[in-house]
Amino acid sequence: MTRIGLLGAGRIGQVHARAVSSVQTAQLVAIADPMTAAAEVVRDAYGCDIRTIEQILVSDDIDAVIICTPTDTHADLIEQFARAGKAIFCEKPVDLDIARVQACLDVVDQTKATLMVGFQRRYDPDFQALRAAIDAGQIGDVEMVTLISRDPSAPPYDYIERSGGIFRDMMIHDFDVARWMLGEEVETVQAAASVLTDPEIGNCGDFDSANAILRTASGKQCTITNSRRATFGYDQRIEVHGSAGSVAADNHHQSRIIVANEQGYTNPPLLGFFMTRYIAAYAAEIEHFVDCVATGSQPRTSGHDGLMSIALAEAALESVRTGTAVRPTDILAGKSTQV
Amino acid sequence: MTRIGLLGAGRIGQVHARAVSSVQTAQLVAIADPMTAAAEVVRDAYGCDIRTIEQILVSDDIDAVIICTPTDTHADLIEQFARAGKAIFCEKPVDLDIARVQACLDVVDQTKATLMVGFQRRYDPDFQALRAAIDAGQIGDVEMVTLISRDPSAPPYDYIERSGGIFRDMMIHDFDVARWMLGEEVETVQAAASVLTDPEIGNCGDFDSANAILRTASGKQCTITNSRRATFGYDQRIEVHGSAGSVAADNHHQSRIIVANEQGYTNPPLLGFFMTRYIAAYAAEIEHFVDCVATGSQPRTSGHDGLMSIALAEAALESVRTGTAVRPTDILAGKSTQV
Amino acid sequence: MTRIGLLGAGRIGQVHARAVSSVQTAQLVAIADPMTAAAEVVRDAYGCDIRTIEQILVSDDIDAVIICTPTDTHADLIEQFARAGKAIFCEKPVDLDIARVQACLDVVDQTKATLMVGFQRRYDPDFQALRAAIDAGQIGDVEMVTLISRDPSAPPYDYIERSGGIFRDMMIHDFDVARWMLGEEVETVQAAASVLTDPEIGNCGDFDSANAILRTASGKQCTITNSRRATFGYDQRIEVHGSAGSVAADNHHQSRIIVANEQGYTNPPLLGFFMTRYIAAYAAEIEHFVDCVATGSQPRTSGHDGLMSIALAEAALESVRTGTAVRPTDILAGKSTQV
Amino acid sequence: MTRIGLLGAGRIGQVHARAVSSVQTAQLVAIADPMTAAAEVVRDAYGCDIRTIEQILVSDDIDAVIICTPTDTHADLIEQFARAGKAIFCEKPVDLDIARVQACLDVVDQTKATLMVGFQRRYDPDFQALRAAIDAGQIGDVEMVTLISRDPSAPPYDYIERSGGIFRDMMIHDFDVARWMLGEEVETVQAAASVLTDPEIGNCGDFDSANAILRTASGKQCTITNSRRATFGYDQRIEVHGSAGSVAADNHHQSRIIVANEQGYTNPPLLGFFMTRYIAAYAAEIEHFVDCVATGSQPRTSGHDGLMSIALAEAALESVRTGTAVRPTDILAGKSTQV
Repeated sequence: MTRIGLLGAGRIGQVHARAVSSVQTAQLVAIADPMTAAAEVVRDAYGCDIRTIEQILVSDDIDAVIICTPTDTHADLIEQFARAGKAIFCEKPVDLDIARVQACLDVVDQTKATLMVGFQRRYDPDFQALRAAIDAGQIGDVEMVTLISRDPSAPPYDYIERSGGIFRDMMIHDFDVARWMLGEEVETVQAAASVLTDPEIGNCGDFDSANAILRTASGKQCTITNSRRATFGYDQRIEVHGSAGSVAADNHHQSRIIVANEQGYTNPPLLGFFMTRYIAAYAAEIEHFVDCVATGSQPRTSGHDGLMSIALAEAALESVRTGTAVRPTDILAGKSTQV
Repeated sequence: MTRIGLLGAGRIGQVHARAVSSVQTAQLVAIADPMTAAAEVVRDAYGCDIRTIEQILVSDDIDAVIICTPTDTHADLIEQFARAGKAIFCEKPVDLDIARVQACLDVVDQTKATLMVGFQRRYDPDFQALRAAIDAGQIGDVEMVTLISRDPSAPPYDYIERSGGIFRDMMIHDFDVARWMLGEEVETVQAAASVLTDPEIGNCGDFDSANAILRTASGKQCTITNSRRATFGYDQRIEVHGSAGSVAADNHHQSRIIVANEQGYTNPPLLGFFMTRYIAAYAAEIEHFVDCVATGSQPRTSGHDGLMSIALAEAALESVRTGTAVRPTDILAGKSTQV
Repeated sequence: MTRIGLLGAGRIGQVHARAVSSVQTAQLVAIADPMTAAAEVVRDAYGCDIRTIEQILVSDDIDAVIICTPTDTHADLIEQFARAGKAIFCEKPVDLDIARVQACLDVVDQTKATLMVGFQRRYDPDFQALRAAIDAGQIGDVEMVTLISRDPSAPPYDYIERSGGIFRDMMIHDFDVARWMLGEEVETVQAAASVLTDPEIGNCGDFDSANAILRTASGKQCTITNSRRATFGYDQRIEVHGSAGSVAADNHHQSRIIVANEQGYTNPPLLGFFMTRYIAAYAAEIEHFVDCVATGSQPRTSGHDGLMSIALAEAALESVRTGTAVRPTDILAGKSTQV
Repeated sequence: MTRIGLLGAGRIGQVHARAVSSVQTAQLVAIADPMTAAAEVVRDAYGCDIRTIEQILVSDDIDAVIICTPTDTHADLIEQFARAGKAIFCEKPVDLDIARVQACLDVVDQTKATLMVGFQRRYDPDFQALRAAIDAGQIGDVEMVTLISRDPSAPPYDYIERSGGIFRDMMIHDFDVARWMLGEEVETVQAAASVLTDPEIGNCGDFDSANAILRTASGKQCTITNSRRATFGYDQRIEVHGSAGSVAADNHHQSRIIVANEQGYTNPPLLGFFMTRYIAAYAAEIEHFVDCVATGSQPRTSGHDGLMSIALAEAALESVRTGTAVRPTDILAGKSTQV
């Protein structure tokens, strides 16, 4: 039984609390949140203690923590819990600043802590089936990947301002999936971005519509399309084209019914957002984390994955600014020179 | 909190134990099964007591029972627990014999017990969405219903011999759905049946392939198609045609991926069988039962529904024997005269 | 080059005139129709003569005729042209009366004339592909067939009155497809019918909604569903279930676009009716007829097929009247005794 | 009746000859091709004369020409026939060299000749329906366009060497569709390209896999994906995302049948290539040309469209070379400076 402390009782914290409750080998021991009311909701629903972060840090009855606090606390908390000998699951991103991520991962390395970064899409049953079809040779060698992700609506403006922007907050998930599907590191990133849905998003210094092309050294390519508004629900598509065929994963609709009438044949809109769309993925993600803690094995989505996805995000942003193709290796090296 | 005793730890019993565990207002207090090993599996997985049926009958800490024992014990157990003042959920069918069902329901009426019969399809989210579309007027008045149900493979021969045959064991679910969709009682049943997949099923006195046409007094019609073998998985389709349009529910595939290659575009086979296909339905069914027990309201799938579906099954069997259209009212009246 | 005379310039006559024009080895030489204006439309569009039926009967420059006149003239015209040594394509049905069909086919046999009956669905590219998949063993042995055919709206009342009713006018196409798919003759027919869309259809002595179950001696079964009203267009579906799998043919929508918005994902309604849905089938049908005339080979849809489909229609009507399963062999033998 | 001379009897010439034969108001008068055998095939199939290009240039009985000769002859022929007072349909591209295209269009302007450039996708019924849905306001304002085009296999190496490369030969169609869908001119082009399917294509100086991002001044964006190999057939997809929804056009499969078995549910591969996929589009394209000639109206796909698509192709190629975003206006102005 892996005994877990949950840091943060907000929206994503509650998603993870629910996920923990669905894993038979995990037990939610304590929740920590400065908002007492939020902590009490989790306590009442799942029957755990309320403790402070400091208490959890020294709790003997807690093996692992799930960090769902605001982004700017992630790196510090990872370092503290790594030093305290706890296994750590941290929501993406580790930090918005590359150098800070690198420093944090150094501490993780030194302490030999288990660190898993939350990229739940890799644990989605459909995307797992897609990846398994590739691994089984059903499409031959991967050549081109197409990712389309659209949110039903943009987050609040104050969230946008703190989020690091569409590339670090939203496309970061696609960057991680792209790396998973390409099976190679990305050599160059080209990107374009606009404000099309709401000028206020531009006033926050962000974009709401963006595209990127990733290219590996061997010439494999990936396009990513992101929009912050989709009237038809939460659009999450992957298609991988290879030498022997293609494999794609369909969206999830609210139900499988189809109404036929004079207007045509209509299937309901997509599931509303990530909490409903990725229920199974969040459960499988936490199950994987618990397995890693129990067996001492390395999580499939590591700190390095967290670092690379944030480097790709920064490369994309640099490409939007300069119009040039940008190398993530230059970003990692502290350079942001165009190719 | 509704405190539940589970009678029967077999396959369907385990499905219901899992469903109970997913309902926050229900608690599994005890499991009863003459097979100790089976009872222990449920006890160990869900942390309940093992008791005998007789002990559960007199347990003060149990409000309701879920009956998953062999069919020939259903009617007796319903009567005993109705008299003991417990709420009762019973797997279909109440009994294979119409007169026995009627006698049992008389006891339920006299004791004013809550009795819910397990027709889980009425609680499936997709079928609920389909029915809601009808209720919202999206297809106008219901005219014709098409039901296609195919099992991946036939049950064991000894099960078939005790099952009452394909109409009472398998098509009974479709009869219930037909009544739900037609919104009227069926006046006549015409049916045909064959042994096509395995001659041994014929030797058991049963069929493996059957069709039926139901017709209501106002002329609404329903066709039902059943097969005991489908290489592509568990086929469960409903389509309702009305004056203003149609609504259909798609099957559930193992995943939503599509592989495209020289052979074409391939989506995986369907989910394997009812335990995986109807997970959400079983959970919603038990949640409804628990709600009814808590609020004292009448379950949506009642003993009357159990009676009518078995009457339709018997009418279908009579139609196969005689070639004629058979009235369920004649079956209920103890007559089986052709129309 | 096969030189063709067309009898009848009505709606279906114009469909066949267009089909002839698309076949490079056929030439439309003359059109005959008592309605001069209708004949002139065909003449002007396709550049042929206008002649009387009597003139065509003795025209040396005409090898074959396509009969698209009213149903009650079919049998007489077939006999006349058979005796005149012309090859004959006749729209279904040969006649509404079984005995008259049988007498007519006797004349065809005696004269050794080529007679093809117009069941265009057998020539539809999708249904051909479906049949080819069966012949290639992709679904194993055929067990159960599901046919669903819905017209967008009913024909005029005066047409209904002369049509012989829904079984002889509409379901006749499904009976022919059923025989093609089952690969065996039908032993019994059970049917039900109602008036649901328009009471005036009942006043014409007909039904607008009907279902049938066909069963062969070996136990293969087919269900057929017909409606005279479908708000979503011309519904034409075939599904064949076999020992190793199933094969189905999808409907044809007005276009392949899908609009996604707050209402859901909407694909346009189906193609409007048989003239647009079966354009390719009508062309392929006439091409097959022309091939048969040129090579002296037997058409795939023969006079016997015309006889059997009308016998099945009459059996279905008898089953509706009596509630019993009816044998087409009894119909053909002049008996209409219940099974 | 528009009387037509066809220049070039190769593959695409035969496609257009067939298209002309399907338009009732057009007549194919003559075919010209230095390969006598090829010209005879067209003559025999469609009953026209064989003439030389010089003869057609002075033929009083020819109103319009369809130019299907090799690309390097297009501009000269357009100029000659424009001066001869003939209406001109020319296959894309007008020329591989921007300056040559511009000079040619100057001659067309001076002579006031009718010039239509062959971008058949704009005439495809499905893409027309998609554009009509946008025009009807079904998706609100256009924001993002996704185009995916994959050929089943690459053309011969000698064709590739003369083709101008994947951007000018293949993606040029997508550039034209992008402009049609965006409704605005493109401000910047970013592109990436690789050789993934066959190193010999790289030896020809070309790529086989390419992606591009187009961005307009108002921020609308379009991604284009091209591959020269797709095992599943000819992949041609358009999706347009707008403020109120999205609209997409599905691919065309070889048939609409679906086979279900242990491997899953399989729909056949896509239609093989452009000759079968775009039959209806080629016919509608020629019908539009004939209408324009008859009414003196301006074709929907003009010489300007031909110019802009080649400018976009060159901009994409420049972007691949330099890694920068390139402005088509700079290309048109004879500059190829990075943004």
